Amino acid sequence: MNPSTLIGMVASCLLLASVLFLTAESPDSFLNLPGLAIVLTGTMAATFISYPLKEVVRVVRLVGLVFRREDNHLRDDIQELVDMARLWFKGDVRAVERALEKTRNPFLRTGIQLVIANTKEQEILDLLRWRIARLKAREHAEAQIFRTMAAYAPAFGMLGTLVGLVNMLEVMDGGSLADIGPRMAVALLTTFYGILLANLVFKPIAVKLERRTEERLIAMNMVLEGISLISRRRLPSFIEETLNSFMTHHQDEIRDDGEPSPVLDPMQDGSHG
Amino acid sequence: MNPSTLIGMVASCLLLASVLFLTAESPDSFLNLPGLAIVLTGTMAATFISYPLKEVVRVVRLVGLVFRREDNHLRDDIQELVDMARLWFKGDVRAVERALEKTRNPFLRTGIQLVIANTKEQEILDLLRWRIARLKAREHAEAQIFRTMAAYAPAFGMLGTLVGLVNMLEVMDGGSLADIGPRMAVALLTTFYGILLANLVFKPIAVKLERRTEERLIAMNMVLEGISLISRRRLPSFIEETLNSFMTHHQDEIRDDGEPSPVLDPMQDGSHG
Amino acid sequence: MNPSTLIGMVASCLLLASVLFLTAESPDSFLNLPGLAIVLTGTMAATFISYPLKEVVRVVRLVGLVFRREDNHLRDDIQELVDMARLWFKGDVRAVERALEKTRNPFLRTGIQLVIANTKEQEILDLLRWRIARLKAREHAEAQIFRTMAAYAPAFGMLGTLVGLVNMLEVMDGGSLADIGPRMAVALLTTFYGILLANLVFKPIAVKLERRTEERLIAMNMVLEGISLISRRRLPSFIEETLNSFMTHHQDEIRDDGEPSPVLDPMQDGSHG
Amino acid sequence: MNPSTLIGMVASCLLLASVLFLTAESPDSFLNLPGLAIVLTGTMAATFISYPLKEVVRVVRLVGLVFRREDNHLRDDIQELVDMARLWFKGDVRAVERALEKTRNPFLRTGIQLVIANTKEQEILDLLRWRIARLKAREHAEAQIFRTMAAYAPAFGMLGTLVGLVNMLEVMDGGSLADIGPRMAVALLTTFYGILLANLVFKPIAVKLERRTEERLIAMNMVLEGISLISRRRLPSFIEETLNSFMTHHQDEIRDDGEPSPVLDPMQDGSHG
Amino acid sequence: MNPSTLIGMVASCLLLASVLFLTAESPDSFLNLPGLAIVLTGTMAATFISYPLKEVVRVVRLVGLVFRREDNHLRDDIQELVDMARLWFKGDVRAVERALEKTRNPFLRTGIQLVIANTKEQEILDLLRWRIARLKAREHAEAQIFRTMAAYAPAFGMLGTLVGLVNMLEVMDGGSLADIGPRMAVALLTTFYGILLANLVFKPIAVKLERRTEERLIAMNMVLEGISLISRRRLPSFIEETLNSFMTHHQDEIRDDGEPSPVLDPMQDGSHG
Repeated sequence: MNPSTLIGMVASCLLLASVLFLTAESPDSFLNLPGLAIVLTGTMAATFISYPLKEVVRVVRLVGLVFRREDNHLRDDIQELVDMARLWFKGDVRAVERALEKTRNPFLRTGIQLVIANTKEQEILDLLRWRIARLKAREHAEAQIFRTMAAYAPAFGMLGTLVGLVNMLEVMDGGSLADIGPRMAVALLTTFYGILLANLVFKPIAVKLERRTEERLIAMNMVLEGISLISRRRLPSFIEETLNSFMTHHQDEIRDDGEPSPVLDPMQDGSHG
Repeated sequence: MNPSTLIGMVASCLLLASVLFLTAESPDSFLNLPGLAIVLTGTMAATFISYPLKEVVRVVRLVGLVFRREDNHLRDDIQELVDMARLWFKGDVRAVERALEKTRNPFLRTGIQLVIANTKEQEILDLLRWRIARLKAREHAEAQIFRTMAAYAPAFGMLGTLVGLVNMLEVMDGGSLADIGPRMAVALLTTFYGILLANLVFKPIAVKLERRTEERLIAMNMVLEGISLISRRRLPSFIEETLNSFMTHHQDEIRDDGEPSPVLDPMQDGSHG
Repeated sequence: MNPSTLIGMVASCLLLASVLFLTAESPDSFLNLPGLAIVLTGTMAATFISYPLKEVVRVVRLVGLVFRREDNHLRDDIQELVDMARLWFKGDVRAVERALEKTRNPFLRTGIQLVIANTKEQEILDLLRWRIARLKAREHAEAQIFRTMAAYAPAFGMLGTLVGLVNMLEVMDGGSLADIGPRMAVALLTTFYGILLANLVFKPIAVKLERRTEERLIAMNMVLEGISLISRRRLPSFIEETLNSFMTHHQDEIRDDGEPSPVLDPMQDGSHG
Repeated sequence: MNPSTLIGMVASCLLLASVLFLTAESPDSFLNLPGLAIVLTGTMAATFISYPLKEVVRVVRLVGLVFRREDNHLRDDIQELVDMARLWFKGDVRAVERALEKTRNPFLRTGIQLVIANTKEQEILDLLRWRIARLKAREHAEAQIFRTMAAYAPAFGMLGTLVGLVNMLEVMDGGSLADIGPRMAVALLTTFYGILLANLVFKPIAVKLERRTEERLIAMNMVLEGISLISRRRLPSFIEETLNSFMTHHQDEIRDDGEPSPVLDPMQDGSHG
Repeated sequence: MNPSTLIGMVASCLLLASVLFLTAESPDSFLNLPGLAIVLTGTMAATFISYPLKEVVRVVRLVGLVFRREDNHLRDDIQELVDMARLWFKGDVRAVERALEKTRNPFLRTGIQLVIANTKEQEILDLLRWRIARLKAREHAEAQIFRTMAAYAPAFGMLGTLVGLVNMLEVMDGGSLADIGPRMAVALLTTFYGILLANLVFKPIAVKLERRTEERLIAMNMVLEGISLISRRRLPSFIEETLNSFMTHHQDEIRDDGEPSPVLDPMQDGSHG
C-alpha cells in the first residue's frame, strides 16, 4: 500500500467525518442521491463521449496504481545492466542471454537483445527512444483523462445546483422561507459533490500519475544511456561509474556542507587517451 | 456506431431524464425557449465571426466522426506496406503498382509511389512530413473550433441569465415573491443550457477529435518509418520486425511479470555488418 | 464581404433583437449609458496603457480585415511562381523581371529578385524566413491585443456592476424593495455589456485574425519552398508537381473511398538519378 | 511622455470621475480606507514573500518606463553599425574606436569591440546571444512580477469583501435592513479596488513591458546580424542592404496594391559568384 | 533571514491585525476552528494523494529556504574556478586537488575532477548538463507541489463554505434572520481561510522557489561554461574575461548614459590568430 495515498485517504475520511458528524445537525443532511447521480452520471457521460471505450476502461486499472506502493527499481536495473555489460565485455553471450531471461524490465531486455544482435547503435537508440516517446504519450493521455474528469465534475455539480434552484424557485410561490432553506441546501450539495470529487479524487490521481511518469522517464533514460555505452563497448567499470554519477549529488547541487563527495575516477575508462 | 459515444449518449439521456422526470415538478419547467435561443444564437454568431465559413461548415461533418466507430487500420496498413516492400525488393514494380491501386490509405500510396519513382529519400521524407504537419495543423484547428464553442456557450448562458434577471428586477416593484421565483428559475435555465452544451457536447467532441488526431499521427509516423526503410532498400523481413517492434510491449514498459517477450532477431537484416 | 462574418453579424442582431423586443418589457430597459461608458472607457484605458499608441491605432484597420472577404490567392501565387520558374529556366531574365513587375505578392517578388541576383540559396532562405518570422510575430501581437481586450471587457463589466451595487446599497436604508429592483437591474447590465463585447466582438476578432495568420503562414511557406527549388535550379515541371502535391490530398489523409488519387510522376525531375 | 500611456491615464481618470461624480450619491461613498489597506497590504505582502527584495525594488524603476516615451533607436543603431563597418572595411581601426566611444548602445559597442579584437565569429555570437538570452529572461521575470501582482490584487480584494461580509453578518441580529446596505457596500468596495488595481495598473504595465521586450529583442537580433556580417568581412554596402531589407515590407507581406517595392540589388555584394 | 520574506511577513501580520482588531467587532469572530480544519485537512489529504510521501516530506524543508537569506555565491564560484584554471594551466594538479577539497560547490568540484581526469570535453558537458537538467526538473516539481496546494486550498475553502451554508439552511425553518447572520459569517470564513492560505503562503512560496531555481540555473550554466573553457585549455585570463563579460552590462543592454563600459581585451587569448 502506498503510504502517501494511505495518509491522504485517512485525512479524507477525517475530513468527511468531521463534516458529517461534527458540523452537521444530522449526517444524512449531506446525502442527496439525485444530486450525486447528476454529478456521477454527467461526469461519466461526458468522459465516455470524450474518450474511446478502451481508454476509459484502462482508467479503472490506473486507479489501482495510485494505491500500490511504487517501488523504485532503478538501482536494481542499473546493477543488472552493469552485470550484463560485464558478461558482454567478456564475450559470454550465453550468460547474457541467461541474465536476460531473468530480468523483469522489458525495456532493458529489448535494449540488451539489440546489443547482442549487433544492431547499429543509432538504430538501437531510435527504437528505444520511440518506446520512451510512446510511453510518455500514452501515460500523459491517461493522466489527461483524470484532468478532464476533474474539470467535468464541478461543472456537473454546478449543473445539479442549477437544477435544484430551478425546482426550488418553481414552488416558491406557495411556500414559506422554511420550505426554501432545506431545498436550497439540497441544491448546494451537488456543487459540494462536484468539488469534492474533483479535488479529492480526480485531480490528485492525475497529479500522481503525472509524477509517476516523470520518475519512469528518468529511469528509462538512464537505462538508455547504459545501453548506449554498452553498444559503444565502453569498459563495464566506466559504465558503472557514469550511471552512478548520474544518480548521485541529489542533495544540493551548488552549495554543500564542506565534506567533498567521493571522487570519481573515470581514468579506468579504456576509451580515454 | 462508436461504443463509447453510445454509452456516453445513453448516460446523457439518463441524466436528462432524471433531471426532468425525477427531480422537477413538471418536465416543462426546464423548457425555456427564449433562453435556449439566446445560448444557441449567441454561440453560433460568435463562432461564425470567429471562423471562415468553410471551416464552420466542415464542423458539421466532424460531429459525425464522433459517432462513427473508429477502426484502427494500423495493422492492415503495416501488412500492406510489408507486402509491397517484398514485391519492390523482388523488383516487381508492376505488382507494386497493382497493390497500390488496391490500398485505401492515400498517405501510404503517395509514399510508395515516390519510392518506385526513385525519388531521393530526403525528398520523400520532406513531402510526407509536410503532409503529417498539415494534417496535424488542420485537425488541431478543427478541434479548436469546438473548444472555442465550449468557451462561448457558458458565456452566452450567463448572458441569458443576466437578461432574465434584468427583466425580473424591472418588474419587481409591482410583484410579490411568488412572482419572482419562477422568473428567476427561467433566468437560471439559460446558464443551465450553456453549461450542458459546453460539457456534454462541445468539449467532449473537442477532446475526442484531439485523441483521434494523436492516434492518426502515430499511425502516419509508423508508415513514414516503413517508407523510409523501403527507400533505404532494407530487407522486407527487417522492415516487418522493426515496425512490429514499434508496436509491441505496450503493457508496462519497465516492469513485467516475468515471462520474457518474444526475442527480436534483427540479424536477418542485410545491412548489418 | 466575408460571408461568415456576415452570418455571424446577422445572428448577433437576431440575438440582440430577441433579447430587447421579445423578452424585455421595454427595449430601453437594456440601455444603461453610464454602465456602457464604464465598460468602454475602462477597456480603452487599460488597452492604451498596455500597448504603444501605434499598435492600438493599427487595431482599427484590422477590424476591417474581419469583414473583408479573404480570398486565398495561393493557387495564383503558385502559378505565377511556376511561370517565373519556366522563364528563369529558359534564361530569359528580362521576361522574369517583367513578370515581377506584375505580381502583387511582395514576398514572392523579393524571393524571385534574390534568385535572379544570384544570391546564395542559404541567404535567400535566411532573409525570407526572417520575414515569415516577423509577420508571424507581428500578426500574433495584433491578435493578442484583441485577446487582451476580451479579458479587460468583462473585468470592467464586473467593476461597473460593483459600482451599481454600491450605489444601490448606499440608498437602501430609505428605500423599499421596489426601489432596489430596477437599480440592481441597471447594475447587472454592465456585466451584460462586458460579456457581450468580449464574446461577440473582441474574442471572435482575435480568433479570426489568428486563423488568418495560420493560413498566410502556410501560403508563405509554400512560396518559400518554391523559391528554394528555383534557386536549386530544379526543372519547372518538378517544381509544379511538388508544390501541387503539397496542396493535394486534404480530404482524409489515411483512409479514402477507394479511388486512387492521380499518380505523381516526379521522374521528370532532372536531378534524379 | 508616452502618448499612449497618457491617453490611457486620461481615460482612467474620466472613468473614475464618472464613477465618483456621475453615478454615486456622494464621492466619498467609494472611499473605504480599511478595504484599500487590505488590498494594498495583502498584495504587497504576497509580492514581498514571492520575490527577492532587489527584484521588488527594481519594480519601482520599471513603472517609470511605462510613462517614458519609448524612442525606437533601431534606425540610428543600424546607421552607426554600417558607418563602423565602412571604417573597419577601410582598415581604420582608430576611427572605429573613436566611433565606439560615441555610441550609446552597449550591446552594439561590445559586438564591435569583439570584432576589432579579431575574436572568432562563433565566440562573438555566443557571447552576444548569451546577453540577448539574459536580457530576455530578466525582462520576462520583471513583467512576471506585475502579472503576479495582477493575480494577487483581486484575490485580496475578495478577501477584504469576505471580511466585510463576516463583520456585517455578525451584527445582523440586532440590525435592520437599513444597517446592512451600507455595510455591504463597503464590503464590495474592496473587490472593486482589487479589480481596478489589477486591470488598470498591474496587468497593463505587465503587457507594456512584455511588448517593449519583444521590440528590444528584434532590435538586438538585427544588430547581432550586422555584427555577424561585419565579422565575416562582407562589403559595407551589402550589410546596409541586408539590414534594410530586414526592416522593410512591413505593410502586408503577401498582397500589396500593385506598386512594386524598391528592387533590392544584392549584386554589389563581393561574396557572390 | 531573507529581508524580502521578513517584510512580507510583517506586512501579512499588519494585514491580519488590521482585519482582526480594526474592522471586526471582536477578534474571535474570525476564528472558526471546524472551517480551518476542513481547509487544512482537505488540502493535506489532496496533497498526500497527489504526491509520493518522500516529496511531501521534502516540502517542509523547502519552506525553510524561503526564510533563509539567499546569498549569491556566483562571484566566489567564478573566482575559485579561475584560480583552479590558473593552477591547472601551470600543470600543478596537486594544488588543484587541494583547492578542490576546499570548494563548497559540488557542481564545480565534479566538473574540475572530470577535467583533471582528462575526460573528453563532450562527456564532461553531457554529465554536467544531465545534472543541470535533473536539478531543474526536481526543483520545478517541488515548486509545483506548492502551486498544487495553492489550487487545493481555495477549493476546500469553498467546500467548507458550502458545508456551512447547507447546515445553516437546514435549520432555517425554525430560525430567524438573527440566527442566520452569524452562521453565514462562519460559513464564509472557510473561503476566507482558503484564499488567505493560497495567496499568502502557498503561491508566494511557489513563486519564490521558481525564481530561486532560475538564479541557480544561470549560475550553473556559467560554471559549465568555465569548465568547458578549462577543458579546451584556454588561457586563464581569457576564461576570466569571458566569464566576467557574461556577468556585466546588466543595467540596460541597448541604451546607456554615454560612459563607455570597460573595453574587453580578448587578444590575450592564446587561441586567437
